[in-house]
Amino acid sequence: MSADHVRTDSASLQMYGTDGSKRGRPADVVVLPDGSDQVAGVVRLCAQHRIPLVPRGAGTGYTGGAVPVNGGVVLSLERMNRILEIDEDNLVAIVEPNVITGDLQAAVERIGLFYPPDPASLKQSAIGGNVAECAGGPRAFKYGTTKQYVLGLEAVLPTGEIVETGGKVVKNVVGYDLTHVLVGSEGTLAIITKIVLRLVPKPPVQSTLRATFRTVSEAANAVTGIIRERVVPAAIELIDRDSLDAVARHLGVRSLAPDGTGALLLLEVDGLAEAVREEADRVERACRRAGATEVLRARDESEREELWRMRRELSPSLKTITPIKFNHDVVVPKGRIPQLFELVDHIKADYRLRIPCFGHAGDGNIHVNIMVDDVEEEIRRAHEAERVLFEGVVALEGSISGEHGIGFAKSTFLTIELSADEIALMKRVKQAFDPQGILNPGKIFPQ
Amino acid sequence: MSADHVRTDSASLQMYGTDGSKRGRPADVVVLPDGSDQVAGVVRLCAQHRIPLVPRGAGTGYTGGAVPVNGGVVLSLERMNRILEIDEDNLVAIVEPNVITGDLQAAVERIGLFYPPDPASLKQSAIGGNVAECAGGPRAFKYGTTKQYVLGLEAVLPTGEIVETGGKVVKNVVGYDLTHVLVGSEGTLAIITKIVLRLVPKPPVQSTLRATFRTVSEAANAVTGIIRERVVPAAIELIDRDSLDAVARHLGVRSLAPDGTGALLLLEVDGLAEAVREEADRVERACRRAGATEVLRARDESEREELWRMRRELSPSLKTITPIKFNHDVVVPKGRIPQLFELVDHIKADYRLRIPCFGHAGDGNIHVNIMVDDVEEEIRRAHEAERVLFEGVVALEGSISGEHGIGFAKSTFLTIELSADEIALMKRVKQAFDPQGILNPGKIFPQ
Repeated sequence: MSADHVRTDSASLQMYGTDGSKRGRPADVVVLPDGSDQVAGVVRLCAQHRIPLVPRGAGTGYTGGAVPVNGGVVLSLERMNRILEIDEDNLVAIVEPNVITGDLQAAVERIGLFYPPDPASLKQSAIGGNVAECAGGPRAFKYGTTKQYVLGLEAVLPTGEIVETGGKVVKNVVGYDLTHVLVGSEGTLAIITKIVLRLVPKPPVQSTLRATFRTVSEAANAVTGIIRERVVPAAIELIDRDSLDAVARHLGVRSLAPDGTGALLLLEVDGLAEAVREEADRVERACRRAGATEVLRARDESEREELWRMRRELSPSLKTITPIKFNHDVVVPKGRIPQLFELVDHIKADYRLRIPCFGHAGDGNIHVNIMVDDVEEEIRRAHEAERVLFEGVVALEGSISGEHGIGFAKSTFLTIELSADEIALMKRVKQAFDPQGILNPGKIFPQ
Repeated sequence: MSADHVRTDSASLQMYGTDGSKRGRPADVVVLPDGSDQVAGVVRLCAQHRIPLVPRGAGTGYTGGAVPVNGGVVLSLERMNRILEIDEDNLVAIVEPNVITGDLQAAVERIGLFYPPDPASLKQSAIGGNVAECAGGPRAFKYGTTKQYVLGLEAVLPTGEIVETGGKVVKNVVGYDLTHVLVGSEGTLAIITKIVLRLVPKPPVQSTLRATFRTVSEAANAVTGIIRERVVPAAIELIDRDSLDAVARHLGVRSLAPDGTGALLLLEVDGLAEAVREEADRVERACRRAGATEVLRARDESEREELWRMRRELSPSLKTITPIKFNHDVVVPKGRIPQLFELVDHIKADYRLRIPCFGHAGDGNIHVNIMVDDVEEEIRRAHEAERVLFEGVVALEGSISGEHGIGFAKSTFLTIELSADEIALMKRVKQAFDPQGILNPGKIFPQ
């Protein structure tokens, strides 16, 4: 490693000290290794001197997973960004961690294959970060999240050894499944340096529908109806009225849906043409039966793009409400979505907050966006509301995070969902990987 | 717990001391708890007195996972055999560990749902054992193995605490994924007392095909051709000539396939009727292009049953060759199946052994059956052949076990596949769960 591989200028230390949450603290030094041997070298040096070490992909996380909260070395994997192999016969891709997820998708789709996980950040986020956080996205309902696609890893342990887990085969039951201990471990157990991913054939045809409803409850009934029709759409996105209003304001139009719309579903089915037609019919039938006020079906790719545009504009449009957003990716069993919205309505009233919601209704994974101005008293109310939200979600047999992870931003809420015994066990697992506690300290567990 | 819950008669001690491999040693005592609290009570007693404790499902394993090799208490979960809930709206089933896998499948299929994993033992094996071993089966190529369906667990740690992992939601990234540490851990980390399973809609239509080829290589080319046609069949079973001959002998018929058949593929596609017809056409086309000598397609359910009959008769028919079978479930990347068969041909010649092979070609998961008479010299040759097989499989980027696990039967071969650093890490994980080493000792790791 040369001087090019190390950065100590204050702009870099700032930039590598934060993530998509815009919170953090500056790194003490940033290193940019070229390969796993160099990663191991950095790790051994940090281990010897007990220096905190924080692995970092593209830095698009929302919970501070890549942020050096205790200072130390930020190890950016950005130079390790090659697609090493796309093995068409074995339906496998082997990649370095900082391949951008969208670039990998484009590369495999060019030869008729498909890597399904599609977090909203896919044009910016690195596949290594997707693995470390177990990223989801709209398609997870049909296709599963990142963990369903990781067959094997190369990783550097915080004690300096390079290990390989799993491999090129889908079936492998030799020893413990270390691959799936590392997926979603938020960079606290090992540094991922190579990833073996399972691919599937690209579905040749999509059909996209948009259905509007008077209430969230009717939209949720439509989702149940679709499942009772035994259809698994590739996406079922739910958007509530406050979110729709924000997008309309952002795009400068009066309205995006019929008057009186309380919720909108964006639905997509995919597969072979014949099956897609049949499934789209069933979806439409289920929506109408649940009381849809309007069902549109895209007739071509440009109409499909137009329907998806609203979904893509959601995140930026929330800025028209307030400058600060506490974005929570809670999840409940999908039959309980109406109860989740009732809970949010209570919180809105009790804490006088605007809380637009949208998300992946098929998974019960709803993004609850607590919007606040930069006013201390309002931020305090938002934090009280967060705790009520999380306690309510766990009471509904849900989880406080379906996609974003815990990082440092949610670590104080961990005890709402996990028992003391469960947390103690996880800490013993952490100890098994990282006896000195140098790797990504201050994450997941309350400090 | 009453006297009914404890067995010490010698017939029981014998019976609970072995498994599907017919190897083992008698238990010292057998306990049969009624629920997780009783399980925790037994665990605490064993922990206090440092008594080895071996959890046991239906005892159908092939590698001795449920066998008390160091003696001690066998904890049979057979009384915990209820389906607690089938939640149709959330596509989830909650079960106790000793529900028979086939019974669960029948129960969910009655309401149009589907639990895909289908190990050959499904009419005898318990779902808890399937989870502990991460069972596979023919449908794994399309649907994945058991781990893809486990959303959450209740388990008793070897230190006596009852923990819950995951839950009713598909997306959950809160803390480490302990669920998938336990899946496939062969009863060495915790005792599974409750399982939350993901269900999918039952595919309404199946189409089953049988294609014969002159050589294994041609059959393997057909599999590659099917994948290049972007079809993922629910099953691609490959049966070699020696296995076909054994089935014919077992059924008392001259032959089951055209003269000169070196390999047979049994294929099934499933889904909506329209898509199934299209996919079956593509499969047939790929088989003919690879040189199939004959392609049959089942016209109705009875013809479908007839085609599958040959597959089901495989295991019993091997007994017509020799009384003893060392059944190895090796796996290679599927593009390397021809190289695996070349390896087996060399082993047959070098060690003068009969080795019929069949298995799940879509996954590259081939059952290599080393057949021997009960003659010491022949058994010795077979054990030498095993090592050559495993070394060859790992050299082909494969794995020594795709379905059956390591247990005690394969633990001496673990170092062929895993590095010393990887094994040391797994032992530290074991230590994190089981500091006293009382739970299922003598498994996975070489003693």
